[in-house]
Amino acid sequence: MKLISIGVLTRGKYGLRLIENIRNNSGFKVSSLEFPESLPDFIEEPAEFIKGLDLDETFFSNDLIIAYIMHPDLTPEIVRLAGENKAHAVIIAGSAAIAGGRDELLNLSKKYGIHIEIHEICCDIGQSGNNTVTGFATCFGRPQIHITTKDGLISTVKVIRGAPCGSTWHMAKNLVGSKIDEAPAKGGLLVQQYPCRAIRGTKGGIHKAAKFHKEAVEKALKESDYMKGSIYERSLKFHEAHQGKIALKTKVSLKTKDDLSLAYTPGVAQACLQIQSNRDDIYRYTSKGNFVAVVSDGTSVLGLGDLGGYAALPVMEGKAALFKVFAGVDAFPICLDTRDTEEVINTIKNIAPAFGGINLEDIGAPRCFEIEERLKGLLDIPVFHDDQHGAALVMLAGLINALKVVGKKFCDIKVVISGAGAAATASAKLLLDECVRDIIICDSTGIIYEGRARLNPYKEELARLTNKNRIMGNLADAMKGADVFIGLSVGGIVSEEMIRSMSDDAIVLPLANPIPEIMPEKAKEAGARIVGSGRSDCPNQINNALGFPGIFRGTLDVRARDINKEMKMAAANTLALLVTEPSEEMIIPSIFDHEVAPRVASAVALAAMESGVARKRVSPEEVARHTRELVRDQ
Amino acid sequence: MKLISIGVLTRGKYGLRLIENIRNNSGFKVSSLEFPESLPDFIEEPAEFIKGLDLDETFFSNDLIIAYIMHPDLTPEIVRLAGENKAHAVIIAGSAAIAGGRDELLNLSKKYGIHIEIHEICCDIGQSGNNTVTGFATCFGRPQIHITTKDGLISTVKVIRGAPCGSTWHMAKNLVGSKIDEAPAKGGLLVQQYPCRAIRGTKGGIHKAAKFHKEAVEKALKESDYMKGSIYERSLKFHEAHQGKIALKTKVSLKTKDDLSLAYTPGVAQACLQIQSNRDDIYRYTSKGNFVAVVSDGTSVLGLGDLGGYAALPVMEGKAALFKVFAGVDAFPICLDTRDTEEVINTIKNIAPAFGGINLEDIGAPRCFEIEERLKGLLDIPVFHDDQHGAALVMLAGLINALKVVGKKFCDIKVVISGAGAAATASAKLLLDECVRDIIICDSTGIIYEGRARLNPYKEELARLTNKNRIMGNLADAMKGADVFIGLSVGGIVSEEMIRSMSDDAIVLPLANPIPEIMPEKAKEAGARIVGSGRSDCPNQINNALGFPGIFRGTLDVRARDINKEMKMAAANTLALLVTEPSEEMIIPSIFDHEVAPRVASAVALAAMESGVARKRVSPEEVARHTRELVRDQ
Repeated sequence: MKLISIGVLTRGKYGLRLIENIRNNSGFKVSSLEFPESLPDFIEEPAEFIKGLDLDETFFSNDLIIAYIMHPDLTPEIVRLAGENKAHAVIIAGSAAIAGGRDELLNLSKKYGIHIEIHEICCDIGQSGNNTVTGFATCFGRPQIHITTKDGLISTVKVIRGAPCGSTWHMAKNLVGSKIDEAPAKGGLLVQQYPCRAIRGTKGGIHKAAKFHKEAVEKALKESDYMKGSIYERSLKFHEAHQGKIALKTKVSLKTKDDLSLAYTPGVAQACLQIQSNRDDIYRYTSKGNFVAVVSDGTSVLGLGDLGGYAALPVMEGKAALFKVFAGVDAFPICLDTRDTEEVINTIKNIAPAFGGINLEDIGAPRCFEIEERLKGLLDIPVFHDDQHGAALVMLAGLINALKVVGKKFCDIKVVISGAGAAATASAKLLLDECVRDIIICDSTGIIYEGRARLNPYKEELARLTNKNRIMGNLADAMKGADVFIGLSVGGIVSEEMIRSMSDDAIVLPLANPIPEIMPEKAKEAGARIVGSGRSDCPNQINNALGFPGIFRGTLDVRARDINKEMKMAAANTLALLVTEPSEEMIIPSIFDHEVAPRVASAVALAAMESGVARKRVSPEEVARHTRELVRDQ
Repeated sequence: MKLISIGVLTRGKYGLRLIENIRNNSGFKVSSLEFPESLPDFIEEPAEFIKGLDLDETFFSNDLIIAYIMHPDLTPEIVRLAGENKAHAVIIAGSAAIAGGRDELLNLSKKYGIHIEIHEICCDIGQSGNNTVTGFATCFGRPQIHITTKDGLISTVKVIRGAPCGSTWHMAKNLVGSKIDEAPAKGGLLVQQYPCRAIRGTKGGIHKAAKFHKEAVEKALKESDYMKGSIYERSLKFHEAHQGKIALKTKVSLKTKDDLSLAYTPGVAQACLQIQSNRDDIYRYTSKGNFVAVVSDGTSVLGLGDLGGYAALPVMEGKAALFKVFAGVDAFPICLDTRDTEEVINTIKNIAPAFGGINLEDIGAPRCFEIEERLKGLLDIPVFHDDQHGAALVMLAGLINALKVVGKKFCDIKVVISGAGAAATASAKLLLDECVRDIIICDSTGIIYEGRARLNPYKEELARLTNKNRIMGNLADAMKGADVFIGLSVGGIVSEEMIRSMSDDAIVLPLANPIPEIMPEKAKEAGARIVGSGRSDCPNQINNALGFPGIFRGTLDVRARDINKEMKMAAANTLALLVTEPSEEMIIPSIFDHEVAPRVASAVALAAMESGVARKRVSPEEVARHTRELVRDQ
């Protein structure tokens, strides 16, 4: 670190704390010069005025001058003095309005070769084109800290760079011992409580400072030991630090006797009686209409297999959190401690009153088919198995755009699907609805064809619906000459040779998670024109989270009794249309595109109304607006 | 309204907006006088200084002078001028530090008979001892508004009194169309966004202004048409405006790809695998440890009877909200669409993985006994039927203090319990544990005694445990000479005559809800010395909410596998001890006593550890601290 010398021009209280802070927290040499606190509004002859103050001119030969003058008429004169006395740079504290004329400052900068920066709040000083300011910013400016943690608590906080006013050191000291998950917000708060002297009127200086510090804590945590290691090690620490991912929130204030009488006894009786006399009023007086149960027996957890209801809870909590964050749907994890199909159906039926919809998740095939079908018959709320329909429709959205790019049509293509589970079955059916005529499905035994031995009833149905020419053989046989490969099976089972055997302009969607049937780059190398996978580190991520949040949002908003084919198609088409110019690297929108959920929700709501399953009419624009609002207001 | 004349002394920008606002929003006459913006720090001869400014002295003959001088040396001189020119009152804007010497101002006030007020922020001007200021405050000062609503939205906002700076009118205009439940927070926000010129440095002026406006909106809503009518009508509107009382909250940030990889796939797999290999790790990596299921089949909803699972949802949501607000417990309503005992038990067992505890609620007797008993055997998490144990232990807490007041002992008293349902049965058993020897229980047929015809097995047990002398007859017969009456039955069945037949210093607890067995004031008139009821509008409210939040907090914090007798007794004794000086009107703490949940939680946690059901050791002090923190941080 270059030890620069700093001169601080103070005015009243402004600047005093900076001097103290430079002395305490750096090796920089600092001197100060006091300016009169009270100044006339207009100073017509700044040079003479300053001369009249009889200042010690040697002060201006410091490397860096930081001026708290806050008078537009005097600032240029100060800069001139600094320039004549060979200072390298001037930092002007205060807003541009206070700093004086921009042109005049620019001319002075050129004339004397002096660097000038204006900072409304001092904690945004950072890298600069100028060596002197950059030197100052090794210690002072935009906050940067280093954190270590122990047992979910902050154990040390070291300031790398701190706000010139000293608030970062104040924060660092008081952050030790805080819980990791509470630390960023607390960091911001500590800075707000520090007696900041940011000049008022310029909108929200202190809020900006708090934001910088909050972000600094977040960044430091991400880089801390707590976040070191593989994604799996980090995820475990992340789960432990937060003790899960969801909590309850009350939508009402319960602070007075009157509040309690309204929300609970005796007032609540009226809502109960109203619902008793008209069951539909439950949507009017309770949270049912926005709550979705994320139900799983944990028998087929993504990439992990049969874990049971307990070990599946982290996934279901995660799913619930995604529902909330992406579409403002209140979701709750129901993890089942049973694998018995009848018990699963009965349990879900029994707990239905509090929910506006059921999202089935990670239930193994073929049980998932029966469970979904029977529940649809038993319940008057929508039941949706995301692993089937969500996965299929997001895949379809990507395929719609991929076909546009390669210039092929659904009715002409040959599709091979690897896998015959939940997602594969739903995908095949959705493609049949899109008029695909040539579909071949392979399970672990090989190609599925009518008459193959030991097929379960669901695979028998697939055999009837697909593979009209009763082709037999293995996956490699199936893939020869195929236009589209859809992998919904297990990682690593497709070779480059198999890709090479496909037709020209092949579309390859190896969607197994976390390891695809073939790694995307390998498929590309082997000649696939378009590749999409479940991976977030490759282009074209086919991610369920593009679907289910918006689908349920639209469904709940029009109180649809079902999520039917029309609604799923509407979701797939809308997702496809969200990519305005599909290309090889862009067949599906990003999960962080804020328009995904609003647009999907409004399309699904419209389709529900048009297909007659909606029990409430709401304009699609209103559904989109509502979605945006819910997402924004979190 | 008296049309007073107002003179505003401005300095720089300060005061200008007030003038504009008085002109726009009142009929008051207003004139202004400009003061130099730049003033020396110290003014040794204020009178001469002001003379030098050559001000128009007639200005000071306005009824009310509002001075934005903000210079301690000049303020007294301004007041003197106002006094000499017969102004009635002076409002000094700015902090006391800026206003000048307090003694000097007091002397001036006496000398000239002029009223002086100092206001750091102008929106705290309100009723004043002075007619002129009160007159000004008919239009300006602490915000007061009138709101009308339609369909859950704000339809009109009228300003009755607004902040002098005009922010209230800004808020009023922009609040129209907002949702009722969002309006108070939005009101505060709108004021914060208004370019307030509250002088910085004096801590949080703008926050105070936002708070005043938020409160004004809350108050106006409570007084609006939306809140007109009986508690039942108001409650219905309240439920509709909020669309229920609970929502999901995410505890983690999900804004980046990395966030998603940590919270969901692929990282989440590690938490799943960890739980699969060690079931107990579910407490470490999920929200289970803080989630309680509030389960009901709605067969015995407080005061309403058998409504079923749908119509019971508003009560269960309310209960969940109370858990959260009073003890930071995340609770979730599970409303059952079945009345079959086996199905109820099975369903609860099947959904147990996501929950750290089960709170049974409003399930009719005698089924509730079997359901609780069997679930306790099936599950490794605590199962607690609040209508039994919660009600009984809060009653016991009140009775402990009531006996202290009248100077009687548990072993000497005769207790009559009206009712033989869930709460009555648990109360009788708890009293037996307290060594009460003489208990008589009456159901709708009359006194329960051994050998009475057609008793169910649970009442047979009660008959064996109580009424040793096999007294027969009705409730009136039972109550003769009783020291304590506990009503857990239905409203209005106890007469004044029956109270008069009790012993001296009778303790009467008619706890039926919402209508007690006898109205508290009638029981008092008939000679009862201490009366406690479920009503919030009478002294001694015996409220379950004193118990269950803290009980579950303590139970969850030490991960107890059960809520046993020792823990219930600890809760009852702690509640009793929270009343430091019990009296006839004060046998139980208030539900708004912030120490209730922390103290109950720590006592329950300690009892769990000492009785061997805790699976985790935490110091009771830490439990109390944690409880306070969770309650505060909402």
